[in-house]
Amino acid sequence: MRPFELYLPTRLIFGKDTIERLPQLLENYHSILLAYGGGSIKRIGLYDKVKELLKGKKIIELPGIAPNPKVQSARDGVKLCREHNIDALLAVGGGSVSDLSKLISCGAFYDGDPWDLVLDPEKIRPGEHLPLFDVLTLAATGSEYDNSGVISNPDTNEKLPVFGDLNPVASILDPVYTFTVPANQTAAGAADIMSHTFETYLVKEGNTLSDGLCEAMLRTVIKNAPIAMAEPENYAARAELMQASSFGCCGILADGMYPSPWVCHGIEHEISAYYDITHGAGLAILTPVWMRYSLSKDTAERFKQYGVNVWGLNKDGDAMEIANQAIDKTAEFFKSLGLPSKLSELGIDDTHFGDMADHIEKFWFGDFRDALRPLERDDIVQILRNSL
Amino acid sequence: MRPFELYLPTRLIFGKDTIERLPQLLENYHSILLAYGGGSIKRIGLYDKVKELLKGKKIIELPGIAPNPKVQSARDGVKLCREHNIDALLAVGGGSVSDLSKLISCGAFYDGDPWDLVLDPEKIRPGEHLPLFDVLTLAATGSEYDNSGVISNPDTNEKLPVFGDLNPVASILDPVYTFTVPANQTAAGAADIMSHTFETYLVKEGNTLSDGLCEAMLRTVIKNAPIAMAEPENYAARAELMQASSFGCCGILADGMYPSPWVCHGIEHEISAYYDITHGAGLAILTPVWMRYSLSKDTAERFKQYGVNVWGLNKDGDAMEIANQAIDKTAEFFKSLGLPSKLSELGIDDTHFGDMADHIEKFWFGDFRDALRPLERDDIVQILRNSL
Repeated sequence: MRPFELYLPTRLIFGKDTIERLPQLLENYHSILLAYGGGSIKRIGLYDKVKELLKGKKIIELPGIAPNPKVQSARDGVKLCREHNIDALLAVGGGSVSDLSKLISCGAFYDGDPWDLVLDPEKIRPGEHLPLFDVLTLAATGSEYDNSGVISNPDTNEKLPVFGDLNPVASILDPVYTFTVPANQTAAGAADIMSHTFETYLVKEGNTLSDGLCEAMLRTVIKNAPIAMAEPENYAARAELMQASSFGCCGILADGMYPSPWVCHGIEHEISAYYDITHGAGLAILTPVWMRYSLSKDTAERFKQYGVNVWGLNKDGDAMEIANQAIDKTAEFFKSLGLPSKLSELGIDDTHFGDMADHIEKFWFGDFRDALRPLERDDIVQILRNSL
Repeated sequence: MRPFELYLPTRLIFGKDTIERLPQLLENYHSILLAYGGGSIKRIGLYDKVKELLKGKKIIELPGIAPNPKVQSARDGVKLCREHNIDALLAVGGGSVSDLSKLISCGAFYDGDPWDLVLDPEKIRPGEHLPLFDVLTLAATGSEYDNSGVISNPDTNEKLPVFGDLNPVASILDPVYTFTVPANQTAAGAADIMSHTFETYLVKEGNTLSDGLCEAMLRTVIKNAPIAMAEPENYAARAELMQASSFGCCGILADGMYPSPWVCHGIEHEISAYYDITHGAGLAILTPVWMRYSLSKDTAERFKQYGVNVWGLNKDGDAMEIANQAIDKTAEFFKSLGLPSKLSELGIDDTHFGDMADHIEKFWFGDFRDALRPLERDDIVQILRNSL
């Protein structure tokens, strides 16, 4: 077992009507930046509910935060924080809104461009960030329970994580707010949660407890995503997906596991940076391709374990064969959710593959040589080609 | 899925030589109460190591904290805190030392007898407790990652939990410090971890993720406890037990599960209060008896799930039969670890069974009518009788 550090200071408040806790959570704050996305929170009445609960406080709004959230929104947010003496951030939406708010929270204490903080996390000084509160409306990224965010910079074709002790103070998780998430976004969220788990689980060495938790994560999504898509208001299915979302990125899956470079996320961020595609859709394409590329006699046992414990495959038989079946099952599952299986389906060709691989080598936090199958620059290009 | 709140503010620092983090963790504190137990930390060199790392600080010692820690030690500790202007607590040892230190930490802010805080948690004012740091030497109670402790009062034959936001600030978990834990204590710790899991898992209604995590917890202990007993210096086995210890009581297993009254813990605390037996030994006796008492056509599916997913029993067949096999396996496992299977082996008879049941009805935090099989006072007496 490897050393680990686990620090989960966010108070997760899960269940129906937990939004009612908002006034108590924010009682010591007076000037609040309310960050949200494209307006779905207005359609479901959440916007009005939040405004009503926070009556009497100064609420400054930062609407329009896009999927693959753009650094310009963080710049706008930081400006608002300064103009209005904001003392707390309230992110209402999916992972993009939470991610972007994390950059605002530390950007408010930094004199330069917030993008500097993405490129150089050392510039984020410990403790120098505004308190962030989160109301989740999409089960996917896990930003509601982790310490980081992912920010896109269209000017430079970059999509990079911002790391720091940026955990929300509290996150309100009411599965009812995900009832109106459309099927395609539910599917993409499911692929994201599964990918977080694969990135942690499909490594050189696991351990009994963390492996078991990862396998339970995968079974949870595999069971509930199709139900949530077929019956959008199925509370149990939405709730299980939301619970899984929060565990995906917070570090708990990785306790004691071999360090992982998060290969599929690294590559997908490159694709999104150039083409602004849905993160989960990109992951659904890359994951089975990466699995296939990583499968060998040396790694077959790990894939076999996945196949047996997650997909219920018969454990008797050739490890390579069972491993291949497990990968087939993964690809079929994503397809059954209506997710794409080729980059070409999204109109992407090989124009930028070389630049993407170069950029990963320079900027990605993880070393791809630590992956289940160690990967060099040319392997990245090959995985991208195999995804066409 | 049920509503839940999860709040895990403790920084878990896991791995070999993580004790070296101590000076940095305590850098802002100057007058430290060092709480420990019977001297094992001296034999393994940990005491000297801690003193060396904290050179230059004022260290006041509170030694001799007993298993089933006694309220008198908390009274002594509170007195020391006042006399020496203690600004942080450092608990070095097993769960007893951590539990007791939690009562000291809030007791230092309370003018009356610390036992009042056990009887009436409302008297613990939010935020009014000394920061607690923990160095763990025994995988068992999970006190290193939870918000509560268990304190015994021999004057009143009471053993009760103290509840509050009493989570340690940080816990250092180095499996090497458990290498010298004797086989019988390793076994008792294993039974304690398994019992924490059973209390959460064997309830009326689970969910995919929490069930899977509970099952992984049980598989972890079942795999590693015998190894750790046979090879006390097996790092991997000690590490997996330590990881499981921390997850047992922190609430993460219970996320979304049916509320549990923690029946076996409730009854075992009564037995320990009268007879001061080893907590894990008492749990090893009670658990299979409680399982057998709770098994019926209505509950068989839950026990079957346990048997199939934890013990690898064949899922095809009569649920009652598989459930009974699973309970047999549990009893055999505890026996194989050298744990007792009857209260009479510990010299306990039925003298106090009535008082114990009465006391549970009055003081236990959980309602036994919420248990997998709802239990009334007379059921408690019967479970105790069946344990003789």
